[in-house]
Amino acid sequence: MTVHRPIALTMGDPAGIGPEIALMAWLARDEGAGLPPFFLIGDPDFIEARASSLGFQVPVAEVGPDLAVEVFSRALPVMPLPSGTRVGAVAGRPSAADAGATLESIMTAVGLVRSGEAIALVTNPIAKYVLTSVGFAYPGHTEFLAALAAEPGKAAPLPVMMLWSETLAVVPVTIHVALRRVPDLLTQDLVVRTARIVARDLTERFGIPHPRLVLSGLNPHAGEAGTMGTEDRDVLEPAVAQLQDEGIDIRGPLPADTLFHPRARAAYDVALTPTHDQALIPIKTIAFDDGVNVTLGLPFIRTSPDHGTAFDIAGKGVARPDSLTGALRLAARLAGQQA
Amino acid sequence: MTVHRPIALTMGDPAGIGPEIALMAWLARDEGAGLPPFFLIGDPDFIEARASSLGFQVPVAEVGPDLAVEVFSRALPVMPLPSGTRVGAVAGRPSAADAGATLESIMTAVGLVRSGEAIALVTNPIAKYVLTSVGFAYPGHTEFLAALAAEPGKAAPLPVMMLWSETLAVVPVTIHVALRRVPDLLTQDLVVRTARIVARDLTERFGIPHPRLVLSGLNPHAGEAGTMGTEDRDVLEPAVAQLQDEGIDIRGPLPADTLFHPRARAAYDVALTPTHDQALIPIKTIAFDDGVNVTLGLPFIRTSPDHGTAFDIAGKGVARPDSLTGALRLAARLAGQQA
Repeated sequence: MTVHRPIALTMGDPAGIGPEIALMAWLARDEGAGLPPFFLIGDPDFIEARASSLGFQVPVAEVGPDLAVEVFSRALPVMPLPSGTRVGAVAGRPSAADAGATLESIMTAVGLVRSGEAIALVTNPIAKYVLTSVGFAYPGHTEFLAALAAEPGKAAPLPVMMLWSETLAVVPVTIHVALRRVPDLLTQDLVVRTARIVARDLTERFGIPHPRLVLSGLNPHAGEAGTMGTEDRDVLEPAVAQLQDEGIDIRGPLPADTLFHPRARAAYDVALTPTHDQALIPIKTIAFDDGVNVTLGLPFIRTSPDHGTAFDIAGKGVARPDSLTGALRLAARLAGQQA
Repeated sequence: MTVHRPIALTMGDPAGIGPEIALMAWLARDEGAGLPPFFLIGDPDFIEARASSLGFQVPVAEVGPDLAVEVFSRALPVMPLPSGTRVGAVAGRPSAADAGATLESIMTAVGLVRSGEAIALVTNPIAKYVLTSVGFAYPGHTEFLAALAAEPGKAAPLPVMMLWSETLAVVPVTIHVALRRVPDLLTQDLVVRTARIVARDLTERFGIPHPRLVLSGLNPHAGEAGTMGTEDRDVLEPAVAQLQDEGIDIRGPLPADTLFHPRARAAYDVALTPTHDQALIPIKTIAFDDGVNVTLGLPFIRTSPDHGTAFDIAGKGVARPDSLTGALRLAARLAGQQA
């Protein structure tokens, strides 16, 4: 399929590694299977200066999404922020002075993907605490995107975080909450709503006609019939039964520890887990550099690298762009385009 | 080093896969680096019948530990239960009728390893619920061994479960308890006592002069400075500081999800984790067939396969003996003997 439209890539926190991994990704655009065309949304002068300070030979083309595909082979397309805001970030020194630009990059990207000018949204990492100082009140990046995705007068959709790699895909049902709170947050309703979105998006976005889901237990050995915690029997089993009644192919709750070796992985397309670590440990153990974060449940395609701003190594040119290039490739694939 | 003394291997639940993986291990005694000599403790006629029903060519020699090494190359040494108890188990059908024999096999083995007639103890899997019917009141196999290891008039030692493979060793600080209880069970004292035993046994048993320990966080991202749960900051950090003051090389609490990929693993000898799944998920993901369970903190060497009785496949000859052979090899190594 000919690629007609580009992917919108946000700047992320400009003091983090986002700008440099975007530069590195563009430099590696012809490696392997090649990268789909993308454009960065930020301050072109800042991006040019960061390239220069890193010694990267990256020509920057100040263009909008309409010309991004055309120039991509010879220059990194950078769309200026609509407000004209300039970015003055120093690598490794996050500053509230750039928080407005960081948020404007995200909001602009969402507008372009909703209007169809971009085929998908890929986001570079942000640091929530930097944004809080200018009034950012969302639990995180993903919830902010969900709010931007809400239809007028309606509640925001439930965003579902999936970590995806070629060998394993996982969905933590609870994410960034204290472990102590998980047993009470893990309701039958939350499990059911999450699994429905996963099943639907695996079909509609990933092209899997009959996705096979598994759900791990909350307790060791999935609670062993209630002898080590009752949530697996009283909450997760009914949730699985309800989903099966709806025609969703899901098994569980299964002991989490025996769910991720190669033979076990062959039997499902995605594993849902009650806790953050039950999902993140296996995928980061076997796909540390190339795991990709995909947000399901939104009315547009959104992927992102599976790492943070890494302020400690920003500006040094030692960050690895693998997860970002994986996010770009997956976004193109989900949009029905291969590079 | 010449091997003078054998390893004592318990029968485990005779309706499970223990007897057949013992037979398979003996059949594979000359493969690879070879297996250290071991003897099974049980009913020789029962073992012979199980071999026969599986079609295994395994001569059984009814001998005690004194002759086990001598006969090992030509026959599987089986020591009868001192009481003369016979075993009538049907594979896959656990029965309280054999519970006494299962326990006697364990108690006999402990006596022989404590007297020095055996160099180490390797245990086949048991099913606690089968033993409960005859009055077995311990939380599990390991706690029963700890009770048998107690000095007269003293409390049982704290047994510490380590899962070990060539590529990763992990210690869950809490084990078979409901996840809801973990935040309150995870005291500074428990972490400190556990880590002390791990550090000591890695030196004394594994021959690592300066073992490097890491401790993972309880909460996602190790709590991010208390913003996602306070236990990492308030319980685990002080425990690590106390251990460091005692001269133990330990780092943490570190985010659990980024602790188990190859580059991270290269920086430590063993990882301690607050929950069962944080330890068991990574080792079963990367070393599913050859992980070994080692009990630290006991006055003798004890290893075991890292799986259960598997009643569903018992008697079919399809079980894999890899974890048992790994347990036998590690036991010999810890005893200062290589096969």
